[in-house]
Amino acid sequence: MASPTDNLQPVNFGILLFPAFQALDVFGPLDALNLLSMLKFPKMNLSIIGLTLDPISTKDPKGSSDFGESVVPTHTISDPPQDLDVLLVPGGLGSRDFEGTTPIVDFIRTIYPSLNQKANGYLLTVCTGSWLAARAGVLDNKFATSNKAAWQEKKDKNIGPDVKWVSYARWVVDGNIWTGSGVAAGIDLMVAFIEKVYGVETANDISRLMEYMPHKDPHDDPFADLYGLPRENC
Amino acid sequence: MASPTDNLQPVNFGILLFPAFQALDVFGPLDALNLLSMLKFPKMNLSIIGLTLDPISTKDPKGSSDFGESVVPTHTISDPPQDLDVLLVPGGLGSRDFEGTTPIVDFIRTIYPSLNQKANGYLLTVCTGSWLAARAGVLDNKFATSNKAAWQEKKDKNIGPDVKWVSYARWVVDGNIWTGSGVAAGIDLMVAFIEKVYGVETANDISRLMEYMPHKDPHDDPFADLYGLPRENC
Repeated sequence: MASPTDNLQPVNFGILLFPAFQALDVFGPLDALNLLSMLKFPKMNLSIIGLTLDPISTKDPKGSSDFGESVVPTHTISDPPQDLDVLLVPGGLGSRDFEGTTPIVDFIRTIYPSLNQKANGYLLTVCTGSWLAARAGVLDNKFATSNKAAWQEKKDKNIGPDVKWVSYARWVVDGNIWTGSGVAAGIDLMVAFIEKVYGVETANDISRLMEYMPHKDPHDDPFADLYGLPRENC
Repeated sequence: MASPTDNLQPVNFGILLFPAFQALDVFGPLDALNLLSMLKFPKMNLSIIGLTLDPISTKDPKGSSDFGESVVPTHTISDPPQDLDVLLVPGGLGSRDFEGTTPIVDFIRTIYPSLNQKANGYLLTVCTGSWLAARAGVLDNKFATSNKAAWQEKKDKNIGPDVKWVSYARWVVDGNIWTGSGVAAGIDLMVAFIEKVYGVETANDISRLMEYMPHKDPHDDPFADLYGLPRENC
């Protein structure tokens, strides 16, 4: 079986989790990576990085609903995995909480330079995960996108004033940073990432097994239309 | 805020998990239910039912990949939640393992009559989750569907010989049993279920927040075409 390092393909993946993460932001892209590892690259590994080692819930601690799921982290931001190639940052209500996620923002700021100096290093965000990356400063002067339902809230909160936010985009690639639009767009981002990095056949195999018809055109964004967004940076 | 019981809408949801479940089979539908509870029905609750209370991983214990995620159960099949309204059964490699999932099959067989006698009781399956329901006998003489990539394997293993398997279907509804096709089809199934049970406005709100364009026609199944399936029961 091929090894991902043959072509400087990433091996060591990490995902940052925090309370009130959005489930599909995480498990859409991870389902694709699970299949990638299962089918082609068994040596790939995944670190799940939390604030602590306690299970991390999708539940909003400030909300009235107790409906949710908890995921077990493998690492913490204070004792993170070494030699990470790809960091995936999801969104969700928790990513919009300025008090709760400051240590997460600091972690992104600290780790990004080590990803950036690798040929197989990438930062991937889904939904309002790009708000966290923006607050970390790593998107400054770069093109990026985010959740469309919260586009105005992003402006109101002055998130990433130096980021070139692209309003009509299913996902945006700028160098080694890939940012996705809301929730399900993370699946499209990951299928496109796999196509770019691991090849079109592998990406097709995976989206077929997922019985998912990916959006293929990053500029085709029905939700920017639906929410009546202005055309910015596109 | 409205209470789901006003219209005999389900309140008590459960999901059955087993080792090597498919992540997106679980977290596609659950993301929609998380939003349903967050936005409209905070009194909804979710039980995550495992063989034991140990975290349950997507990893295939017989596979060579160590890449995966673990979810924390809240209940076990030997001490399940009382008064369940909806049971959701995902698929994945684990559901295709005849040795490992026999207690899961027995659990479905035992619990289905209590769901079936409720006006707000439903059994929902995604992907090869319907194989487990078929092995439990609860799909006998009913229309149902399943993952398309493993359609032939289902026949070869003689899963549910008395089930009216529908080859061209994104999802199938027969009475209070909803069965979905592979993986991402679970999102379509859940959006359709929410539309039927909670109303079209709620379903639209949720799919828009998920930035997901659901398949609206259950008979439109591009993956049955793609895998060249024969037309059966459709």
